[in-house]
Amino acid sequence: MTNCVLCKDGLRPDEGQLIWRGDDCRVILVHDPDLPGFCRVIWNRHVAEMTDLTSGERDHMMTLVFAVEEAVRHVMHPDKVNVAALGNMVPHIHWHVIPRFKDDAFFPGSAWSSRIQETRNAVLEARRKKAQDLPAIVKAAIAALS
Amino acid sequence: MTNCVLCKDGLRPDEGQLIWRGDDCRVILVHDPDLPGFCRVIWNRHVAEMTDLTSGERDHMMTLVFAVEEAVRHVMHPDKVNVAALGNMVPHIHWHVIPRFKDDAFFPGSAWSSRIQETRNAVLEARRKKAQDLPAIVKAAIAALS
Repeated sequence: MTNCVLCKDGLRPDEGQLIWRGDDCRVILVHDPDLPGFCRVIWNRHVAEMTDLTSGERDHMMTLVFAVEEAVRHVMHPDKVNVAALGNMVPHIHWHVIPRFKDDAFFPGSAWSSRIQETRNAVLEARRKKAQDLPAIVKAAIAALS
Repeated sequence: MTNCVLCKDGLRPDEGQLIWRGDDCRVILVHDPDLPGFCRVIWNRHVAEMTDLTSGERDHMMTLVFAVEEAVRHVMHPDKVNVAALGNMVPHIHWHVIPRFKDDAFFPGSAWSSRIQETRNAVLEARRKKAQDLPAIVKAAIAALS
């Protein structure tokens, strides 16, 4: 769809970094200043809802989502992982996989809730550094699936 | 876990209505005044993350989540469905399946974002009425899986 941002493959460097691309899905590391390690699994074709996919396509996508969750836990050691497919603004299937920490800006609210606290800068920097290991670990986790 | 609200099976009538209960999961219709048709799929045992489950358990749960999504779309005809497992407040796996409408209180924000508009009362009432059909349709959808 021509006016859908997720139908365009390109990423501005400030948006994120492409980690992996397959025939059906791609995985990006989102550059979110508050939530280092935030990943997104995007269906390549323009489809709005998971139940618009076949059951095999859904399984494939969820296998990737949970491989990413595993990698995120392994690298970031979060207090909780949030997994969500909303798409109210961009109705093109994409799953957010977000490592959450008790001291992050929104905890215990959702990543779309109001900011309620500031994370210490040194802590955020250490998490951003850890997140740099994610692309290699996610790629290895996906390679191990096949 | 004794202090986990989802480890208790009971629901106060103002919280929601049990639609279906299996050995591993249960499905409830959430009584949310702003978001009629909101359903929740809950893992019965106390487990925090999807990747704490085996791959077979995950598949089972996601099959239920998408059966619920299908039923929600069929009954509610939403503009979008939101599917999310957060658990920051209650780290016991549960999936929110939420029919969203362009005129709902939070759209296009998440269901956890700030309220930005009021839905017309007659519209909300009509949606609440429709949602009463959900238990039967969800039960039928789950029965058709086996």
